[in-house]
Amino acid sequence: MKDTKVNAAILIIGNEILSGRTQDTNTSTLATWLNSIGVKVKEVRVIPDIEKTIVDTLNVLRKENDYVFTTGGIGPTHDDITAESVSKAFGLKYEIHKEGYKILESYYKPGEFNEGRQKMIWMPENAELILNPTSGAPGFSVENVFCLPGVPSIMKSMLGGITNKIVGGEPILSKTISLKTVESEIANSLTKVQDNNKDVEIGSYPFFHAGKLGVSIVLRSENQSKIDECNIQILKFVNEKKIEVVER
Amino acid sequence: MKDTKVNAAILIIGNEILSGRTQDTNTSTLATWLNSIGVKVKEVRVIPDIEKTIVDTLNVLRKENDYVFTTGGIGPTHDDITAESVSKAFGLKYEIHKEGYKILESYYKPGEFNEGRQKMIWMPENAELILNPTSGAPGFSVENVFCLPGVPSIMKSMLGGITNKIVGGEPILSKTISLKTVESEIANSLTKVQDNNKDVEIGSYPFFHAGKLGVSIVLRSENQSKIDECNIQILKFVNEKKIEVVER
Repeated sequence: MKDTKVNAAILIIGNEILSGRTQDTNTSTLATWLNSIGVKVKEVRVIPDIEKTIVDTLNVLRKENDYVFTTGGIGPTHDDITAESVSKAFGLKYEIHKEGYKILESYYKPGEFNEGRQKMIWMPENAELILNPTSGAPGFSVENVFCLPGVPSIMKSMLGGITNKIVGGEPILSKTISLKTVESEIANSLTKVQDNNKDVEIGSYPFFHAGKLGVSIVLRSENQSKIDECNIQILKFVNEKKIEVVER
Repeated sequence: MKDTKVNAAILIIGNEILSGRTQDTNTSTLATWLNSIGVKVKEVRVIPDIEKTIVDTLNVLRKENDYVFTTGGIGPTHDDITAESVSKAFGLKYEIHKEGYKILESYYKPGEFNEGRQKMIWMPENAELILNPTSGAPGFSVENVFCLPGVPSIMKSMLGGITNKIVGGEPILSKTISLKTVESEIANSLTKVQDNNKDVEIGSYPFFHAGKLGVSIVLRSENQSKIDECNIQILKFVNEKKIEVVER
C-alpha cells in the first residue's frame, strides 16, 4: 500500500498512562487533527518519566518521522522533565525562555510568578513557543518536535496555534460502511476488494453497540474517487449477499 | 528510582487507533490488571497493520521485556495479520491449530465454521491457546508474547484465563492524595519529598473536574510502609501550607 508523504509520531510521556490510572485521549485528538491537515500518524509510543528513555526515544522518532508531537511532562513539578530531556536530545542549552518569561510574568498577578511557575519557561535554547490560550504556560517546538501539555483540554486548545507550522500532504479522507453482519461472512469478498484497490486502506472493525452487532468497514485514502470506486465494489457484494447496511 | 523486577510492554496493533477513529482503552485495562499481579508496564507502542512493522517491533519488545501483550489483528479479515506476523517474528510455521480448530468447530452450528472463521485458528506452530469466554475464537501465546483481540470487552474477558501464566513480582501499590491547590504551590516541597523517598514513584497530576480544580499526588511502590512514610511527609507540608485535602 502506498504510504502518504508526510508522517508523524506521537510520544505520550507519563507514568500515569503506563500505570493505567489515566486513560490517554490525546492520541485520538492529535491523530484526528493531523489527518485533517494531511499528516499520517505512523506510530505512537507511551513512555515513563525517565530522562534517558525520553532522550533515546525522541532521537529515534524525530529522525524517522517528519514530525513528532509529545504530550506531558511540561508542568512545574519534579516529574515534569520533558523540556530538559528535549534539550539533551538536541544537545541544546536548557535555559529560561525570555519571551515565555514575559508572557507568564504578565499572566500572573504580581508576586504569583514564583519559582515553581518559572520552571515552566525553562526550555531548550531558541525554542519556538506554542501559545496556550487556556492556562498561560506555553509549549514549545524545536525543529520538527512539538511539545504539548498532557492535560487534554489544554493540549487541544493549543493545536490551532501550530496548524500553520505543519506542512501536510493531501488530507486523508475516509468513508465508513456499517453492516449488520459478522466479519467472517465478508472476509473473502473484502480481501478481493482490497487486492483490487491497493491505494485504499480498508479496515474491518466489529462493533457491539446498544445491543446491535455488526461490522464497520473503513476506507481511507487521499483520493476521493478511489474511495468511491472501492465503496461501489463493496456495496456490490453486500447486495449480492443480502446484507443490511446500518447507521452507526 | 529502583525498577521492579518484572516488566511488560503493550503492543496495540491497528490502523484504527493511529487514525484517531477508535479510542484505545485496552492499554488502561491491561496496565491496571498487570499492576495488580505485580507487573509494571514499561512501554506501550501503537503500530499499523503492516507485517514488517509488527515483526520488527515485536522482536525488539519481546527481548527487552519479561512479557509482551498484543491487542488487535486476530480476526478473520484481510487486515488481521497478527498471528502470521508473530509466526514470522519467531521463525515458526503458521498453521491450523488443532485444538483451536476443535473448539471453534463445536462453537459454531454445523455448516457455519466457514473459511473466514477458520482463519482465526491459523497460528504459530505449538502456540498455547488463550480461551475466549465471550465469542469463541481464542487468542494465543508464544513464549513471553500473549496475543489478544482488539475488541475491549472480549479482550478483558480473556485476562482471567492467563493470570496463572504470568509470574509477577510484588503487586504495585498506590495511594492518591488530592489537594485544592495548583502544582506550582507544592512543586518545591514535593521535590524534597521525592528526593528523600527514592523508592516511591511520586507523580503530580492537575485535575479539572466538575468545576473543581486541584492536584492529585500519586504515590506508587511495592512497599506499603514506604508509601505511608511518604504520605506523612506530604501531609506535613500540606498542613503547613494550609492546603485543603479534597475527595477525588
